[in-house]
Amino acid sequence: MIANVYRTHHCNELRPDHIGETVTLTGWINTVRDQGGVIFVDLRDREGITQVVFRSEESPEAAALSHKLRDEDVLRVSGKVVQRLEGTANEKLATGAIEIVAQVAEVLNKAAVLPFQLDTELSNEDLRLKYRYLDLRRPRMNKNLRTRHRIVKATRDYLDEAGFVEVETPILSKSTPEGARDFLVPARLNPGKFYALPQAPQQYKQLLMVAGLEKYFQIARCFRDEDLRADRQPEFTQVDIEASFVTEEDIYALVEGLVASMFKAGRGVDIPTPFLRMTWKEAMDRFGSDKPDTRFGNEIVDLGDVFAKTEFKIFRGTFDKGGVVRAINAKGFACLTTGQMNRLNEIAIQAGLPVKTLAFIKCENGEYKSPLWKFFTEEEKAGLVAKMAIEEGDIVFFVAGEWESTSTILGRVRLEIADMQGITKDTEKLNFLWVIDFPLLGYSEEDGKWNAVHHPFTRPKAEDIPLLEAGEYAKVRAVAYDVVLNGTELGGGSLRIHESDLQAKMFEVLGVTGEEQHEMFGHILEAFQYGAPPHGGLALGLDRIIMLAAGEDSIREVIAFPKNNRGQELMTMSPGSVDFKQLRDLYVQSTFKPKEKVAETGVEGVK
Amino acid sequence: MIANVYRTHHCNELRPDHIGETVTLTGWINTVRDQGGVIFVDLRDREGITQVVFRSEESPEAAALSHKLRDEDVLRVSGKVVQRLEGTANEKLATGAIEIVAQVAEVLNKAAVLPFQLDTELSNEDLRLKYRYLDLRRPRMNKNLRTRHRIVKATRDYLDEAGFVEVETPILSKSTPEGARDFLVPARLNPGKFYALPQAPQQYKQLLMVAGLEKYFQIARCFRDEDLRADRQPEFTQVDIEASFVTEEDIYALVEGLVASMFKAGRGVDIPTPFLRMTWKEAMDRFGSDKPDTRFGNEIVDLGDVFAKTEFKIFRGTFDKGGVVRAINAKGFACLTTGQMNRLNEIAIQAGLPVKTLAFIKCENGEYKSPLWKFFTEEEKAGLVAKMAIEEGDIVFFVAGEWESTSTILGRVRLEIADMQGITKDTEKLNFLWVIDFPLLGYSEEDGKWNAVHHPFTRPKAEDIPLLEAGEYAKVRAVAYDVVLNGTELGGGSLRIHESDLQAKMFEVLGVTGEEQHEMFGHILEAFQYGAPPHGGLALGLDRIIMLAAGEDSIREVIAFPKNNRGQELMTMSPGSVDFKQLRDLYVQSTFKPKEKVAETGVEGVK
Repeated sequence: MIANVYRTHHCNELRPDHIGETVTLTGWINTVRDQGGVIFVDLRDREGITQVVFRSEESPEAAALSHKLRDEDVLRVSGKVVQRLEGTANEKLATGAIEIVAQVAEVLNKAAVLPFQLDTELSNEDLRLKYRYLDLRRPRMNKNLRTRHRIVKATRDYLDEAGFVEVETPILSKSTPEGARDFLVPARLNPGKFYALPQAPQQYKQLLMVAGLEKYFQIARCFRDEDLRADRQPEFTQVDIEASFVTEEDIYALVEGLVASMFKAGRGVDIPTPFLRMTWKEAMDRFGSDKPDTRFGNEIVDLGDVFAKTEFKIFRGTFDKGGVVRAINAKGFACLTTGQMNRLNEIAIQAGLPVKTLAFIKCENGEYKSPLWKFFTEEEKAGLVAKMAIEEGDIVFFVAGEWESTSTILGRVRLEIADMQGITKDTEKLNFLWVIDFPLLGYSEEDGKWNAVHHPFTRPKAEDIPLLEAGEYAKVRAVAYDVVLNGTELGGGSLRIHESDLQAKMFEVLGVTGEEQHEMFGHILEAFQYGAPPHGGLALGLDRIIMLAAGEDSIREVIAFPKNNRGQELMTMSPGSVDFKQLRDLYVQSTFKPKEKVAETGVEGVK
Repeated sequence: MIANVYRTHHCNELRPDHIGETVTLTGWINTVRDQGGVIFVDLRDREGITQVVFRSEESPEAAALSHKLRDEDVLRVSGKVVQRLEGTANEKLATGAIEIVAQVAEVLNKAAVLPFQLDTELSNEDLRLKYRYLDLRRPRMNKNLRTRHRIVKATRDYLDEAGFVEVETPILSKSTPEGARDFLVPARLNPGKFYALPQAPQQYKQLLMVAGLEKYFQIARCFRDEDLRADRQPEFTQVDIEASFVTEEDIYALVEGLVASMFKAGRGVDIPTPFLRMTWKEAMDRFGSDKPDTRFGNEIVDLGDVFAKTEFKIFRGTFDKGGVVRAINAKGFACLTTGQMNRLNEIAIQAGLPVKTLAFIKCENGEYKSPLWKFFTEEEKAGLVAKMAIEEGDIVFFVAGEWESTSTILGRVRLEIADMQGITKDTEKLNFLWVIDFPLLGYSEEDGKWNAVHHPFTRPKAEDIPLLEAGEYAKVRAVAYDVVLNGTELGGGSLRIHESDLQAKMFEVLGVTGEEQHEMFGHILEAFQYGAPPHGGLALGLDRIIMLAAGEDSIREVIAFPKNNRGQELMTMSPGSVDFKQLRDLYVQSTFKPKEKVAETGVEGVK
């Protein structure tokens, strides 16, 4: 588009066809080499690299300048395209057959010595983030930013084509009393009041359905003020979608096409659709997870029939309490180290194992080794070996207890073993699936009441509404769905309740009083009285999808200026201190008093 | 894209070709009419309206249901497409030749009586904003949202095509000590510190140039905590652009193509390019504005030659002090009312007129009327009439004084008269132009120093650098440009300084000390040492462009959920009160104590 005095070509463009042409290139000096007094420069721009040679017989001025060139100087050079000497072509480089003989060269800006080399991987992520503007010069990071752009473009093109309208909803919005912790913004013009940054545009998108937009989407920035765990960001981006007059089948088809177009744009692969579907029940039963990784087996097996008549006290007691005995066979993993065994026990305990070690049976040198083996009858042993298909070198882990927690523990152990075996590193295999029919409600022992698993507007399945009315809350399934790739949740959503009587019933079950309803959801409940259409939607975690499409293992690699796990952006050193006067104007003051410094300087961080 | 059980067609699709087909439509009841016991419904979806008739001979059930239908009920109806009876076709409606005879009808949701009618214009904007989800159902507002989507899509398509990469920069960023007031966000994980919401991604975009991205854009949400004037929003959206290795000519060509594609998408018109260019000096001289509205004449005329030898004390004194005497001829406006005259005086005083009334000469019934007429010689009178081309019915306004303020006063008066004459209401004429060569520096009497007119990274024109070095700051022009439409600034930008010595000189002129530089711009100045490319860019006010393309006169008409001029979003009642505990977790407390309520309830707004 832009005709340019700085260049006739980009640094990836020149080929033997161009030999004899005079061209101008501009970019950064990637490397500079002195070969017997002749300077060779690899000039880099965002598209690629071209070799430039400075010969004094061609231009004494350019040759003189070339001796002063340093890495990362910004250089404009004009010269003739020539074939490289026999045997010096670089086949790894798109432009490797040619080089430029400099006629006119100009340093547009000098570069100081960099704090790190761009061609080596840095393990110090803080240093990378502090000098992010240099880190992003690496071809891999440049590629990631551009992959992100292409995926986002493909997302918008696809949704536009499907009739969806992008609407920007407010960032300065209202604090909602549920969900994660909000970031707050003092509202100077409304003293004592606060805006909140949105955790998601959930209410706005539903209100846009009431407004008759029918098909909405937004690539939306969202915010959660949570303690940051690995690979969480306080601000993140989601592809937010809502549609009226649709069934869940419409959503599945739409999202499958969308995700396929994102991976096509990001990675050039064709994703087969439709995706596999699995009920939440089956996912938990077979994989002990609501986001099963189906790239590998080692599925959970129920041993109820094998041990139906067992005398072994622990199993017997479990069965008598309505529990289950379940196991996974970690094929070929009997050779695990003590360290790995300890790690698996740790994982299992974190996941809820009520004892200190995982029960196991391993088969080594034709022998079955297990602390439990002696408690089983011959019939049970034979049944177990057959059911679990135990072979030489296998190790089977057992858990006994309540179905969901037993499945969850085994699911975590299964995943950890796959990590240990390096199976989860395979980013070529792309196992997409839908997990559907999530439970609508979950009982919280802590709160002593039933809570919405998704949110209070999630729709129960039509055939389960009688169960809701009969008070069989645990059995009620929602029209809620997650899309999962290789054990990672890419996103999820639901159809919503649009009828006020059903919504009232839902609030009754959740124990939300009329006053609380008004306080928390007043405007949306009022809106729903004026002809709310049947509607539903979904949100996809964009950063994570880009990460997976780019084959990266951290979302920070696909975000231009991410924050570290202390919530800091190290390049600009944000967050920062602010002036006392700024806070006074906002009718707030800091209450933070650092223990050590308070005596000296008063309130730290407020100057 | 979505195959749908709710509809076979949208409500704008059916034509005589479809007669005889059985179709399903879903939407809202726009109107319901009882014609001799037969119910006719105009069913509306987001695409249009179709008439449905309920005949008991076709379906007694549907006919029975039809008598209970009310405005804005959500209805799904299946039936046969038939030709309307002779003489009942509605030519204003795309589907006006046909109607649907209902066979099966189902109310998907009932609507309560609406707080206002959708088919009448409401002057109470607060009511519209409170029920925004109903307000947005109006076809005009639905159209505006979809026009916005199309313009934004065209923007992205155009910039993508031109090689620009969209990058999301942080919303949780760092407070900058200059510019407008920041919105602040307490950073819980960094007690006592605050994020700021970005006023613009200025520093990030320049750092992306250092990072070698070469062409960046973003449709970026920006925030300014200013006292809200008419048609300002605390959060707004800009098209943010930055490119390396470009000249201002490249930017002009890029942006002209972009703006043309935005208006093509929004309004279907072809905008001729290139745009007219005018230096800031000329714009001020002829129009008294840095964003001249060239849809009409009445330009400012300098009367220096006419009154060169004048004995009239006021003019003489002005000339002797190096000032100017300038005037505009408001063609045909001699008939203005006293009220209008008072308003013009008011405008002129606001703009800096040091006396209480504007001097004028009007020509009515062949006579020149003016308080000043008697002070002029015959030669001056003749010269004036000739120079200003005064004709019957004209009125000429004079101002004497310093060039810039004189021009500004006349510029404001010129615009106000055009408003009074209704000229500025013409949204069909689209006069685009560039204002270029802005001054680099402006002297602030208040600060007693020179400030950057744009920002401290703005590049001086190469030929004016000697003036900068000679201390002739007022004469130094910047490579800065604004794109203007019909007197409205659509956006602006500049080429930036990328050389550290020139930047140091600039800071010296601005009186920014080394310590302040480090504090305010440390990371960007450091970044610039490592090979910053020549670069420049621009930002366009997206909301305003969409408003102008849509022919609206307020940006609130093209924003889904705008805030009112108290910074409130009335639908969700944001900002709101927050829990004391939320604030405590953030290490802040409210200092607001409303005078009346403090005794009763403690701190208002914090419960």
